Amino acid sequence: MLKKIVLTGAAGALGSRLRAPLAAMCETLVSTDLAAALDGVADNETYVKADVGNAEEMMALIEGAEMVVHFGAIADEAPFEQIMHSNFMGAYNVWNAAHKHGVRRIVYASSIHAMGMYPKTTRITGDMPHRPDSFYGLSKCFAEDMGRMYWDKYGIEAVCLRIYSAPGSVANARALGSYLSYDDCVQLVQRSVDTPVVGFTVIYGVSNNDRSPVDNSAAAFLGYRPKDNAEEFAEAILAKTPKADPLDKAQMCHGGPFATVPLGVSGVQYIKKMSEGN
Amino acid sequence: MLKKIVLTGAAGALGSRLRAPLAAMCETLVSTDLAAALDGVADNETYVKADVGNAEEMMALIEGAEMVVHFGAIADEAPFEQIMHSNFMGAYNVWNAAHKHGVRRIVYASSIHAMGMYPKTTRITGDMPHRPDSFYGLSKCFAEDMGRMYWDKYGIEAVCLRIYSAPGSVANARALGSYLSYDDCVQLVQRSVDTPVVGFTVIYGVSNNDRSPVDNSAAAFLGYRPKDNAEEFAEAILAKTPKADPLDKAQMCHGGPFATVPLGVSGVQYIKKMSEGN
Amino acid sequence: MLKKIVLTGAAGALGSRLRAPLAAMCETLVSTDLAAALDGVADNETYVKADVGNAEEMMALIEGAEMVVHFGAIADEAPFEQIMHSNFMGAYNVWNAAHKHGVRRIVYASSIHAMGMYPKTTRITGDMPHRPDSFYGLSKCFAEDMGRMYWDKYGIEAVCLRIYSAPGSVANARALGSYLSYDDCVQLVQRSVDTPVVGFTVIYGVSNNDRSPVDNSAAAFLGYRPKDNAEEFAEAILAKTPKADPLDKAQMCHGGPFATVPLGVSGVQYIKKMSEGN
Amino acid sequence: MLKKIVLTGAAGALGSRLRAPLAAMCETLVSTDLAAALDGVADNETYVKADVGNAEEMMALIEGAEMVVHFGAIADEAPFEQIMHSNFMGAYNVWNAAHKHGVRRIVYASSIHAMGMYPKTTRITGDMPHRPDSFYGLSKCFAEDMGRMYWDKYGIEAVCLRIYSAPGSVANARALGSYLSYDDCVQLVQRSVDTPVVGFTVIYGVSNNDRSPVDNSAAAFLGYRPKDNAEEFAEAILAKTPKADPLDKAQMCHGGPFATVPLGVSGVQYIKKMSEGN
Amino acid sequence: MLKKIVLTGAAGALGSRLRAPLAAMCETLVSTDLAAALDGVADNETYVKADVGNAEEMMALIEGAEMVVHFGAIADEAPFEQIMHSNFMGAYNVWNAAHKHGVRRIVYASSIHAMGMYPKTTRITGDMPHRPDSFYGLSKCFAEDMGRMYWDKYGIEAVCLRIYSAPGSVANARALGSYLSYDDCVQLVQRSVDTPVVGFTVIYGVSNNDRSPVDNSAAAFLGYRPKDNAEEFAEAILAKTPKADPLDKAQMCHGGPFATVPLGVSGVQYIKKMSEGN
Amino acid sequence: MLKKIVLTGAAGALGSRLRAPLAAMCETLVSTDLAAALDGVADNETYVKADVGNAEEMMALIEGAEMVVHFGAIADEAPFEQIMHSNFMGAYNVWNAAHKHGVRRIVYASSIHAMGMYPKTTRITGDMPHRPDSFYGLSKCFAEDMGRMYWDKYGIEAVCLRIYSAPGSVANARALGSYLSYDDCVQLVQRSVDTPVVGFTVIYGVSNNDRSPVDNSAAAFLGYRPKDNAEEFAEAILAKTPKADPLDKAQMCHGGPFATVPLGVSGVQYIKKMSEGN
Repeated sequence: MLKKIVLTGAAGALGSRLRAPLAAMCETLVSTDLAAALDGVADNETYVKADVGNAEEMMALIEGAEMVVHFGAIADEAPFEQIMHSNFMGAYNVWNAAHKHGVRRIVYASSIHAMGMYPKTTRITGDMPHRPDSFYGLSKCFAEDMGRMYWDKYGIEAVCLRIYSAPGSVANARALGSYLSYDDCVQLVQRSVDTPVVGFTVIYGVSNNDRSPVDNSAAAFLGYRPKDNAEEFAEAILAKTPKADPLDKAQMCHGGPFATVPLGVSGVQYIKKMSEGN
Repeated sequence: MLKKIVLTGAAGALGSRLRAPLAAMCETLVSTDLAAALDGVADNETYVKADVGNAEEMMALIEGAEMVVHFGAIADEAPFEQIMHSNFMGAYNVWNAAHKHGVRRIVYASSIHAMGMYPKTTRITGDMPHRPDSFYGLSKCFAEDMGRMYWDKYGIEAVCLRIYSAPGSVANARALGSYLSYDDCVQLVQRSVDTPVVGFTVIYGVSNNDRSPVDNSAAAFLGYRPKDNAEEFAEAILAKTPKADPLDKAQMCHGGPFATVPLGVSGVQYIKKMSEGN
Repeated sequence: MLKKIVLTGAAGALGSRLRAPLAAMCETLVSTDLAAALDGVADNETYVKADVGNAEEMMALIEGAEMVVHFGAIADEAPFEQIMHSNFMGAYNVWNAAHKHGVRRIVYASSIHAMGMYPKTTRITGDMPHRPDSFYGLSKCFAEDMGRMYWDKYGIEAVCLRIYSAPGSVANARALGSYLSYDDCVQLVQRSVDTPVVGFTVIYGVSNNDRSPVDNSAAAFLGYRPKDNAEEFAEAILAKTPKADPLDKAQMCHGGPFATVPLGVSGVQYIKKMSEGN
Repeated sequence: MLKKIVLTGAAGALGSRLRAPLAAMCETLVSTDLAAALDGVADNETYVKADVGNAEEMMALIEGAEMVVHFGAIADEAPFEQIMHSNFMGAYNVWNAAHKHGVRRIVYASSIHAMGMYPKTTRITGDMPHRPDSFYGLSKCFAEDMGRMYWDKYGIEAVCLRIYSAPGSVANARALGSYLSYDDCVQLVQRSVDTPVVGFTVIYGVSNNDRSPVDNSAAAFLGYRPKDNAEEFAEAILAKTPKADPLDKAQMCHGGPFATVPLGVSGVQYIKKMSEGN
Repeated sequence: MLKKIVLTGAAGALGSRLRAPLAAMCETLVSTDLAAALDGVADNETYVKADVGNAEEMMALIEGAEMVVHFGAIADEAPFEQIMHSNFMGAYNVWNAAHKHGVRRIVYASSIHAMGMYPKTTRITGDMPHRPDSFYGLSKCFAEDMGRMYWDKYGIEAVCLRIYSAPGSVANARALGSYLSYDDCVQLVQRSVDTPVVGFTVIYGVSNNDRSPVDNSAAAFLGYRPKDNAEEFAEAILAKTPKADPLDKAQMCHGGPFATVPLGVSGVQYIKKMSEGN
Repeated sequence: MLKKIVLTGAAGALGSRLRAPLAAMCETLVSTDLAAALDGVADNETYVKADVGNAEEMMALIEGAEMVVHFGAIADEAPFEQIMHSNFMGAYNVWNAAHKHGVRRIVYASSIHAMGMYPKTTRITGDMPHRPDSFYGLSKCFAEDMGRMYWDKYGIEAVCLRIYSAPGSVANARALGSYLSYDDCVQLVQRSVDTPVVGFTVIYGVSNNDRSPVDNSAAAFLGYRPKDNAEEFAEAILAKTPKADPLDKAQMCHGGPFATVPLGVSGVQYIKKMSEGN
């Protein structure tokens, strides 16, 4: 059993579902986010309000931790300055503090958007060059490369979870392949924590969908075996899907709508699409 | 729901089993073959006698179609001139008409014989160079390359189904790996039609056989998950299989007997072997 | 010294320059083309007027040959029916006759247009899948796949020369990379003939241009070491090159203008461009 | 049904479990090992005491066999001279006798230790260069390369089973990925024997563990579908696993403790670790 | 001839040598750096003092440019905040302004330190994943990924020059392979500017050293043919090279001393080593 | 300058030419072979008669050495027992002694025959699996795998020189590609010794032949740039080369005659062929 885990982004859609499972894997869980407080704090859990973009706060929080599960960030495309603060500087603050305090491993919520400009007809793996589709995706590339560097130079392990669709409902045809259920997301984090050695590993966060468009075979040693499958929604979803245009990057690329949304923009229309399964 | 699908080869062993499932996916199904008439024509199905090797007939049939499911061809090795008419010119007529009429996608019955000279110990994928084993296989190479060109130049999508064994019984040891059940073949065509975007994709048509010798992972986004498995017949089949000779290309190559049958020849002996599962 | 070589396309721009070098490598050179007669026939050379698209004429010519150097074909995009006759049927007639008469090797004038839709930023090799840009290029794919089959099944060797730019002047920026001088073309054919064993080999026909965009390393055993280099024309050519558009396939793809010319069309405008270096 | 199979190492932990299944696949099973006698000899089984390191004994035993299942060897790291006798010379004696007597196929108990120095974060396949971790592993490299040579030169088939963990209990975290159950080991040998043609094939011997760290896809045509899964022991095993050190090769490399044990040494401490699942 | 080129870092060791060659390739060259003024300003050159880390200054400078040659940055490891300002924000400011102003291409001074943690026994290419060795190298990864994104989304071309050794003297054994002469650096920038289409291209900046440890073949279409060769210094350099330790990352990795220098540190000792050829 | 180098096989055709160049690179050169004495011993050279197959003699000789240049072995196919003694045990004795005595690097005369069964149409690299053609070639596979292990476990460096043709005259068509001149062989050993760090590296020993059939690019950091070229003999050699048969492995495989010579046999006829250029 681990002594201390730090969970950032603990108030988010994913983070809030990771609190209980992580609390069961360590003596002390320190949860953090921008919210003032969280409900249902476990006996061995402490909540600390903090900003991942604030170096001092991160340095203090991470002291004594064995692992950091870093899910705290803007989870959408946004102006560069905002992404810079929360996603770039947030990731830097976590790795820098981890190094200073001898943290053993970071489990990082990366994203498909680090690879979003690849066409779907290219099956993407964990060791192909980045092709980000947004400032958001670019911040994930940055953190992955930084994680690789801290592993190469200092032996700090990292598992980068390229989460495909933000978990939730299966709202469109893209999600038939990209869906990640909450249960599978929890399993993915559990395996990332309990596997004895992981080095530097990249794995896609998708459920066991019939139409999954990614290749996780190189990370099979983690033992991630997703249970859910979006195919049960296929008939209903496809019946209402408008005719596709294969020359539209939003439909052909792994990144979905992010492949065509203007950089830095997260307007209502795009946000709505994204909320349906990107 | 699609407006109009054209199915060629509708009277064939495979084509006849595709009529009902395709009719359920579109407003109008136009079926065609060389037969004078077909039984059991669905309400939204029209049968038209035509020759795929006849350019004018194909041009007329395909007008207004969104997709063409092109299964019409000689399904055996035959003299070059016959293959040229039905398979080469047939495929050209389909793509040419599709281009003229703005068809969105062609689902094409390619064949393992486009890759038949690879040894079985080489696991073949969808992006290795062709190695045909017959004029028949060569015509499949031609159509695949043509499909790639129409996609690259004009954005006409194509799914090339490299059907391994012609569906039917599991008659010999080769079929333990190469078997494609009718149900799985239908599923494969359904996925090729209902997937919103496919670009240019190659996928092998095999069931979920324990001994399947091909790699479909790059086309996984199609969601083809075969259900049948020839292994139930393994014990009986192997018990009557004569001792193999690994230096015999007919036994070592993916193409099976086609790897050694003389070009252009389809004698009784070879036909009989082929009917057992190539 | 070889007993008999057959050269098709002997009256063409390339073929006419191959006659003397090939005559020096064999006891008897049989040259053929559509022209009524050729000038400067060597002592050991016989000219026979014939059409590569005519099976009987090819069967008669090739009898007794050890090698066929097959350069006879339409060297431009043209309506499918024309390409079918001269390029598809021409190649079939040559290989079929070679098989019937026990010819040992075919040296084949393939073309970059078998790979023309690849972007220039992809360095193309001899073992990547075809991506033709025209009916002309598609006929080269067909002949290469057929050559592979005759090698796999019958042991007939083939060297496929993917000639990049038709030799001649360096007329545009594309030719700075794609130029093939006549001397280098001759050397390429000589090596294809004098190398003792070649199996089935694909090699690009380009000179030693600084800006050569292809990879011939896999065929290095042939010993082709081009001597000429288009770079001497770079300054003059680039000074008059209009601003490029990287989203224009005609400028970004290996096939150059062929990547955008409509299929089957060879209008004056395109022919003029092609004559300048495709 | 095969006429005669020879099984070496018939008294070993694995070999003893192969006797009955192999006896069921042939008219005559000849079992051999260093033991004086074996219990439970089948009606069509003959036991012969012999040393695989003794050329004459192997030559006599193998006469008339169609296949040899070669499991006889020191199954641990040991001084070079001992490995030389039993593992190097043993393998040579088997292949040499097989060649002299026209044996069709050898099923060989290779080992993960032929690849033991690869880090676990590299998913290993059957066609990557060897990286042995011990004299023991080096002897497996030798036999695999020799098997390849006899296939290339003489057409003698071979299936090299890179057994990961010696079957038995799941005793440590490494075994969660590397476990091979006895039943799955038997199935693996059965498929290696009953598949009509195998050429030269390498396959990893692991069960269907969630955390399996190897890639057997290239050998899928053998139809090996393991049934057991070490994951049922994961919770208990991981609870008692000490904190891992990713910079310790014994924890990071596929070979486990063999990656750090001094060459030639098999002290009590190391043997104990090995017996727990390497 | 180009209308306007902007050169950043114009006062640096490399930038100062690029001014005259670039001035010869355009109607107007705008040079910029932190220096108050530059000597020897050409007739068609304008010098503007500006900070690449200042968004407004970059936005103003780049207006109307066809290309930006971006060499302005801290050329050493430094504390993260400094690298963030000059290298991360500098690169972002350049691409963002380029996008706003319709710039066609950016030629970017990337660095070997984006790949510095690869061992020298791995021949690195332009399409392998990043393995940075420093904050400095990480900033190059960021800019390359950003350049890829602007190409994928907006068609802005980029050539990323992974400069190996900063040009100058050949001071140590590493430089025998990594040396880039000033002349070759100028040629590399010239080819990056005059090649009509480049898409997104990565190329290593090394001279024609016998011991060059990188692979530029994929970018050969640029026509970069270096002329200088560090081998003339080999005998003298090697005679004074202390015994190497292959387990020392500073000696084994492509990044040289950067592979072991602590992140963010640029002390005198390290600077001195760096000045000798990293 | 190195303190002590040990050269085995010092009386052989290659070894005798390495003595003077190696003596110039170290304070003390210890040369050894089976001969009673050598002529022309340098001032800093000591000759010791010894058998590489004798463990004690090797252990004594190697004490105090920084590097061993191991060329001593049977340089021909021979009965397994002879190869076992001189080539297998010889290599083991060298690496074992090197480990015991802290030797830093071994430069090893491997051979093309470790890869001899690959067809020439496959361009072979340093990281493809072995395909030996003889017991002789198998002993080279063994030593390479052992060298990899000592590097992985103990950090002992190795450069494996896969010498293609034994240097000497260019006697046949195969040698036009495979020729290695004495001068180039010396350069290859010099670079293998003077390169500061080499890890574990495999490189082919061929001259700068136009028809060189191997790929050394991965080992380019060694700086081996051969000067000689067998092409000057091409015309004469090819004029007397009998008609080749591409289905004859002796002509099609990299190993040449070794690909078909029976294992263990070195009859007069084969020896004569080998002496002409294998």
